[in-house]
Amino acid sequence: MIRPGTWYLEAISPELITSCLLKEVIYVGQTPYQEVQVLDVAPFGRCLVLDGKTQSAECDEHIYHESLVHPVMLLHPQPRTVFIGGGGEGATLREALAHRSVTRAVMVDIDQQVVELCKQHLPKHHQGAFDDPRAQLRIGDARQLLAEAPEQFDVIILDLADPIEGGPAYRLYTQEFYQIAKAKLNPGGLLVTQSGPASPLNHTEAFTVIQHTLASVFPRTIPYSVYVPSFMNPWGFTIAALDAGAQMPSPEELDRRIAQCITRPLRFFDGLTSQALTTLSSFLRRGFAEEKRIATDASPVFVV
Amino acid sequence: MIRPGTWYLEAISPELITSCLLKEVIYVGQTPYQEVQVLDVAPFGRCLVLDGKTQSAECDEHIYHESLVHPVMLLHPQPRTVFIGGGGEGATLREALAHRSVTRAVMVDIDQQVVELCKQHLPKHHQGAFDDPRAQLRIGDARQLLAEAPEQFDVIILDLADPIEGGPAYRLYTQEFYQIAKAKLNPGGLLVTQSGPASPLNHTEAFTVIQHTLASVFPRTIPYSVYVPSFMNPWGFTIAALDAGAQMPSPEELDRRIAQCITRPLRFFDGLTSQALTTLSSFLRRGFAEEKRIATDASPVFVV
Amino acid sequence: MIRPGTWYLEAISPELITSCLLKEVIYVGQTPYQEVQVLDVAPFGRCLVLDGKTQSAECDEHIYHESLVHPVMLLHPQPRTVFIGGGGEGATLREALAHRSVTRAVMVDIDQQVVELCKQHLPKHHQGAFDDPRAQLRIGDARQLLAEAPEQFDVIILDLADPIEGGPAYRLYTQEFYQIAKAKLNPGGLLVTQSGPASPLNHTEAFTVIQHTLASVFPRTIPYSVYVPSFMNPWGFTIAALDAGAQMPSPEELDRRIAQCITRPLRFFDGLTSQALTTLSSFLRRGFAEEKRIATDASPVFVV
Amino acid sequence: MIRPGTWYLEAISPELITSCLLKEVIYVGQTPYQEVQVLDVAPFGRCLVLDGKTQSAECDEHIYHESLVHPVMLLHPQPRTVFIGGGGEGATLREALAHRSVTRAVMVDIDQQVVELCKQHLPKHHQGAFDDPRAQLRIGDARQLLAEAPEQFDVIILDLADPIEGGPAYRLYTQEFYQIAKAKLNPGGLLVTQSGPASPLNHTEAFTVIQHTLASVFPRTIPYSVYVPSFMNPWGFTIAALDAGAQMPSPEELDRRIAQCITRPLRFFDGLTSQALTTLSSFLRRGFAEEKRIATDASPVFVV
Repeated sequence: MIRPGTWYLEAISPELITSCLLKEVIYVGQTPYQEVQVLDVAPFGRCLVLDGKTQSAECDEHIYHESLVHPVMLLHPQPRTVFIGGGGEGATLREALAHRSVTRAVMVDIDQQVVELCKQHLPKHHQGAFDDPRAQLRIGDARQLLAEAPEQFDVIILDLADPIEGGPAYRLYTQEFYQIAKAKLNPGGLLVTQSGPASPLNHTEAFTVIQHTLASVFPRTIPYSVYVPSFMNPWGFTIAALDAGAQMPSPEELDRRIAQCITRPLRFFDGLTSQALTTLSSFLRRGFAEEKRIATDASPVFVV
Repeated sequence: MIRPGTWYLEAISPELITSCLLKEVIYVGQTPYQEVQVLDVAPFGRCLVLDGKTQSAECDEHIYHESLVHPVMLLHPQPRTVFIGGGGEGATLREALAHRSVTRAVMVDIDQQVVELCKQHLPKHHQGAFDDPRAQLRIGDARQLLAEAPEQFDVIILDLADPIEGGPAYRLYTQEFYQIAKAKLNPGGLLVTQSGPASPLNHTEAFTVIQHTLASVFPRTIPYSVYVPSFMNPWGFTIAALDAGAQMPSPEELDRRIAQCITRPLRFFDGLTSQALTTLSSFLRRGFAEEKRIATDASPVFVV
Repeated sequence: MIRPGTWYLEAISPELITSCLLKEVIYVGQTPYQEVQVLDVAPFGRCLVLDGKTQSAECDEHIYHESLVHPVMLLHPQPRTVFIGGGGEGATLREALAHRSVTRAVMVDIDQQVVELCKQHLPKHHQGAFDDPRAQLRIGDARQLLAEAPEQFDVIILDLADPIEGGPAYRLYTQEFYQIAKAKLNPGGLLVTQSGPASPLNHTEAFTVIQHTLASVFPRTIPYSVYVPSFMNPWGFTIAALDAGAQMPSPEELDRRIAQCITRPLRFFDGLTSQALTTLSSFLRRGFAEEKRIATDASPVFVV
Repeated sequence: MIRPGTWYLEAISPELITSCLLKEVIYVGQTPYQEVQVLDVAPFGRCLVLDGKTQSAECDEHIYHESLVHPVMLLHPQPRTVFIGGGGEGATLREALAHRSVTRAVMVDIDQQVVELCKQHLPKHHQGAFDDPRAQLRIGDARQLLAEAPEQFDVIILDLADPIEGGPAYRLYTQEFYQIAKAKLNPGGLLVTQSGPASPLNHTEAFTVIQHTLASVFPRTIPYSVYVPSFMNPWGFTIAALDAGAQMPSPEELDRRIAQCITRPLRFFDGLTSQALTTLSSFLRRGFAEEKRIATDASPVFVV
């Protein structure tokens, strides 16, 4: 039975809508870049919603953010400098700073208001990460600020909104941008980007194109996916490496590295979880094998 | 934007509803056992819905049914006789019969009308499996008919509705039933059961209890899960083995066995997919480790 | 509590949606002119839906059709010839033919397929009216066929779809069309048109404009409204008369005329009901008094 | 097209749901008596919602409250003392106090928290009425406080929640309560009660029973109805009079009395509107004529 009352509706596609019982509207507003909602919905807890799309939810943001950050950080032997594109909630920053080796994490978000709103309304997301002396927040276009950054980075983490036509993020998913990013990496450097939905019904919307575009710039890519309950979908990520032989460590080695390199226990990610995420089901392998598209500035990829 | 028009709403939980654009209502009716709908919904194609829960959809039933049937059938060295509990759509039967070694597949469904409706309205599901001379359909309570069956089986496959309070299926998820099933297996025999939702938010509703209950009867269990788009959730399965050392073959060995044992190409399942399904993320391992409940006739497990 | 299941959603406005439990989809299709649905929805019974808007429902079509037809027919001393524009369901025709004095009723609908679908699927609406020897169905544009009709009429009844941008009907709500209609009326002739929603929130969308446009062509208009449950809104109608002194008879006189002129009992309309419909609440009187717009071919009126 | 986003859903019946675009959740909470929501919904403005039912909305509360208060107040030759049962928003009090003759208005609401929330969040509803020196607020059960009131009243106005099983209000719709109320009226006294939905589909849920119950206690009743947009339904009211010959004044006389007796212009009610409201359509007359039920404490009336 469905309760009458207040509900939050989100369109997965024009033919598929999810409705969550709304417990509280924390904030609704419009910034120069996007519509922002901070909502508390019954099954998922406090959520950041940008332009009608849930970005992360209290109940499972650790699944998304640990899966985004730790594989790439643990694949690197000793990541000191990290560039984060997007990630207004501060949770990506939080996870990156949990790595003992990190001396500086530069986060660039285009939307100062979103960052301020997250600082205020999503304390369980950032957990004070913005106040870490190693963190540096820069407001502006991640592409431009990365290109102009005075420093090089060991790891680049792209925690961006989906590439939506007319949205602020699509130029951060193109071949040209990945070339810029590659040039800003130190030797042995790595990049990871969120890569959109990854179910059998929608993995070719963005995931396979992003992987294929990265593979046109980097000698090695490692795509993987994880189910995120508040997205009601598996979600894709792609690591790109300067080193053609890069390979996720074994589960045992990963567990050892987690214990050594990370200053606190993780809630989701561990060695076997890494293996579950990076072992690709048949439809993903087929999707990557058959993908021909490369996203460029002139011909970008969009999700619906 | 959401189209006004006709929609199909399903409750994942009282706080989470999914809505699919309805293209056609093929059939709606009530049998002595359950409410039956055959619907054609825009994103998923033709679906069987029992008591308001989608059982399988044309777009991805191969993911569900191949994941249910082939792991257990390929784990067995040479399955000849198969017992199928439930599976009214005929797709489980279809996949079982694709194994060259099978000489007889006995399928028991409680609801003759559902089977007839599936025969008529879901031809892409059964693909004529009911007409295979090795197939034998028996109508009745799977628990009783399994107990009274004159024969023993190599493999038992339980493709049942979720255990719902007041529903027809919950007595097929109890320790007592698993003891009956165990007694009907040939030496080296295996059982697999669908085991309910398997996301971080709902894996302890049924999946961990079913695994723990099976582990109280069988010396060896192998739980695994797969994301099924039309369920908008990962789904759990549990293999139970008489042989304490049973172990899924390596990806390479599985691919070899698929080529040898199955009469036609599979659409989803293969060696690496098997590894993806059976490699358990941390929350599942924790869930199984911490589970204490055992479902019994007196104290069964129910999903909401 | 809301039942999951199949629902029919209709937009009253972009900010207000009604959802009815869907019992059966009788027909869905596209004609050259419009999208057609015949639905059976739980609270209202069998409905005709054109372009996503409920035209009439079994449970209350008698309220709509009696309110459309009988005031104008009873205001006329002896209506013999009737022109009906639209009215594909056949219910307007049915009510017109119930008047003993009628010798000919010419009905023009633009969409032959809608008429055929109504004949087949809405038998309780037309009740065989199309077979009455006094009825003549012409397929085509009501404006053109009225202009070219060889005969004159005593009463013109316009049972049209709402004037929607891009829809087939908006040219039947303009000053130019009303001038055509006026020229086709016999002396003492009367016209009535459905006039859109009539609540305090939406009576100025079309109702007041239609009345004001008619008043620019005819010396006398009589607007009135009735609540139609399946529209969840009061609905407006406007009578226009060649005779400047036309006035609805008293309730007692109306009841006498109903008994004399109509061949069977009415279900909704009677003398006091007529008084209830034609006594205008303050917001309607204000709306008519303040309306300045006149709908013309060059500047028509549209509802959202 | 429907916007994804936040929506407010209300059940008109289990088969009919309305959804309004939610602009702001002003307040949500639970008192000892009921669930309270103050919502701002796009089409209707700020609303008070009790136990999931909209009580009144900013856009049309003047229609509801003027229709409740002024007919009975203008029917009385000179109402000095008024008892108001319910009416937590303060708008009924506001309208009663607009009558020049009123020297005292006693308002009894069971739920102090609702009154305080309305004072705070619905300033456009009460417009300061609670601060009028003639107003006296008493918190408690209206039935008990009316029975125990030291004074008699000229007019009793019952602005109550619908009679819902288990709700706080159903004992204020019974024959026993109406006998209590009758005994507290001065000679020539009048009572009015909101009487539930009044459409052809639902007028027999409560309206006809309430009228019939009042008619079993008072020598004269005057039922009437008005369409309230935010209820998406016509709404019923019933006046009961000690004087068997009580009759609504003519439209002209009413307009004269409004100008004399009320201290400020009305927004909705006037003489012709009164005639529109009190002229009953056929289904209402039939409903009242056929009603046999009388609501008693032992056998009350409930709406769904």
